Amino acid sequence: MDQVQIFDVSLRDGLQNEPVVLPTATKLEIARRLVSAGYRDIEVTSFVRPRLVPQLADAADLVRMLPKAEGVRFWALVPNQIGLDRAIDAGIQNVCTFMSASETHNQKNVNRTVRESLAGLERVIGSASSQEMGVRAYISTVFGCPFEGDVPVSQTVPIARALLDAGADVVVLGDTTGMGTPMQVKNVVRTLVDEGIPLDRIGLHFHDTRGTALVNAFAAFQEGARMFDGSTSGVGGCPYAPGATGNGSSEDLIYMFHAMGVDTGIDLDIACDAGRMLEEALGRELPGRFHRYWLAQRERDRSDEDAPSAGSGETKFRTA
Amino acid sequence: MDQVQIFDVSLRDGLQNEPVVLPTATKLEIARRLVSAGYRDIEVTSFVRPRLVPQLADAADLVRMLPKAEGVRFWALVPNQIGLDRAIDAGIQNVCTFMSASETHNQKNVNRTVRESLAGLERVIGSASSQEMGVRAYISTVFGCPFEGDVPVSQTVPIARALLDAGADVVVLGDTTGMGTPMQVKNVVRTLVDEGIPLDRIGLHFHDTRGTALVNAFAAFQEGARMFDGSTSGVGGCPYAPGATGNGSSEDLIYMFHAMGVDTGIDLDIACDAGRMLEEALGRELPGRFHRYWLAQRERDRSDEDAPSAGSGETKFRTA
Repeated sequence: MDQVQIFDVSLRDGLQNEPVVLPTATKLEIARRLVSAGYRDIEVTSFVRPRLVPQLADAADLVRMLPKAEGVRFWALVPNQIGLDRAIDAGIQNVCTFMSASETHNQKNVNRTVRESLAGLERVIGSASSQEMGVRAYISTVFGCPFEGDVPVSQTVPIARALLDAGADVVVLGDTTGMGTPMQVKNVVRTLVDEGIPLDRIGLHFHDTRGTALVNAFAAFQEGARMFDGSTSGVGGCPYAPGATGNGSSEDLIYMFHAMGVDTGIDLDIACDAGRMLEEALGRELPGRFHRYWLAQRERDRSDEDAPSAGSGETKFRTA
Repeated sequence: MDQVQIFDVSLRDGLQNEPVVLPTATKLEIARRLVSAGYRDIEVTSFVRPRLVPQLADAADLVRMLPKAEGVRFWALVPNQIGLDRAIDAGIQNVCTFMSASETHNQKNVNRTVRESLAGLERVIGSASSQEMGVRAYISTVFGCPFEGDVPVSQTVPIARALLDAGADVVVLGDTTGMGTPMQVKNVVRTLVDEGIPLDRIGLHFHDTRGTALVNAFAAFQEGARMFDGSTSGVGGCPYAPGATGNGSSEDLIYMFHAMGVDTGIDLDIACDAGRMLEEALGRELPGRFHRYWLAQRERDRSDEDAPSAGSGETKFRTA
C-alpha cells in the first residue's frame, strides 16, 4: 500500500500568518491533539527574534513543555546559527531552514543574495546535521515569485543540490504565493529527479491561494512525491493578498489520499478535531474545505439529536 | 491546443441552492456579463413549479429577456413534459434533464424508481431532440450517494446508455454531494468509455463539498473528458451539509485549465467580475478560491492607488 508523510505546519507557518497571539497552553493542547491524530511530523515554532514574530515569541517555553511522544518529530524553523543554538537549547532535534529560489524574493525576505543565503545555510545545516538533527531545507517561490513571476526550475536545481550536499535530509519545494499549477508541478518534480535528486528527499509545500493546493499535491504524487506539508484547516492566510487563502489544508490532503487508498497514518476525525480547536482559539472561520464539511456534519448530527423534526421545514428566503 | 467546454450553472443550480430570491434584472445583468466573458453554455433557469423553487419562479420572464448572443446556448432544467413545454414556449432551445444513479436518491428526489424515471425521460428527451433541441441528461450521485454510500459505476453505465439512446447529446455525471475522489473519477470515466460511451458525450459536474472539485476535474481531463460544469465563484451551497461548500467554481476550473495550456474560450478577468456581481447581489462571501484571490488583489490594487504608504506598517495583533 502506498504511503505519504504529512507534515503539519499549522502551529508555526499557520500561526505566523494569523494576526492573533495564542497562549502557549492553547498551542500545547493543539499539539497534543495533533499527536493523537497520528501526525509524526509537527512544525511547532520558529526561533526568530520574538519582536519580529510575536505569535511565536513563546518558542522556548513551548518546546520545553511539548508532550513526550514516541516516534513524533517536533520541528522548529531557524533562520541562522543563533536561532539553531536557541532551538537546541530548548530541546529541539529537528529544524527547518529557508531561502528562496528567486533572487528578488530572497533579498526582500532575508536581505541576502541567493549565494549568500546558501553559504550561511551550509554552515547552519552542517552544524545541525553533524549533531544528528533532522534538517528540512525549504526553498520558497519554486513555482513562481510575486516579484519575478515565473521561476525556471533551472534556478531551483542547483539550490536543492547544494542544500542536500550540505546535509539537509529533505528539500521542501515551497509554492509561497500559490502560483503553482499541476503540469508545472509535474515538470518541476520530474526535472529534479532527472537531475539526480531522489524522491525520498523531496517534500512539497503548497498554498491554496488560487485553489490549486490539492490538485498540485495529486500531480506531485503522480510523479512519485510522497512528503507533503499541510496546515490544519488551512490556518495561515496569504500575506500578499489579504483575504485570500494561504496554506493548503492538512485534512483536505489526508481525505484525498485516504480515498486514493494511500496510507497517511492519520485519523482524519481527530485531525479535524484539532482544526475545530484551532478555529475556536483563533476566533475566525478557517477555510479548509474538509474542515468546513466536517463541522457542518457535526452540527447537523447534533441538531438531529436535539430535535427530531429539525432538518425538515421550509428554507427562509430573502429577497435581494 | 487542447480545449475544454465550461458550462456555467450559477444562475440555476447555484441560485437554486441559495436562500435569496434575486430580481430578474439582476440575473440578466449577470447573464450579460457571463456572455461577455465568453461562456458558450449558460444554464439560466429551471421550469419547475414556481412554488417549489421561488428563486427560479421568474423562469419564463427571464428567458424572454435574455440577450441575443450569437453562438451562446442558454440552457434550462426541465423535470418533465410540462416543464419542457413551458421552456419551449418561453424560447428555450437547450434543456437539461435529471435523474439519479441511486434508487434511494431518485425516490427521495423525484418520487420514482430509476426505471420509471428513465421511461419518463425517454419521452421528454425524445420530444426535445425531435425538435432539434440540445439535450444534456444529468445523472446525479454517480460518485456516491448520501443515502446509499458507494455507487458502483455499473449502475451508471446502463442509465447513461439509455439516456443517450433516447436522444440526449451528452450525459453529465454529477457528484451531487461532493463524494467523488480522483482515482474513482478516473475509473468511472474510463469504464464508461470502455463500455462504448464516447468522451464527446460525457460531461462532468463536480461539487467542492470536501475540497475535491478541481482535482476531480483534473483527473477526468487526464482520462480525456473535455466538458465541465462550474458555478461562478462556487455559488450554491450544499443542502445536505449547510455551511459546507457546494458547486465547484467556474473560475477555479478556468484558471487551472489556462495554466495547463488548455483553451476555454473564456476571459478569466470578466468571469471573475461576474462573480463579484453575484457576490454583491447575494450579500454573502462566495467560496470560490480564485474568486477570493481576485477580489483581494483588486482591493489591494485600489488601496495602493489611494495611499502609497498602504501595505507597509505593522500587523495589528489580538491576544486570544
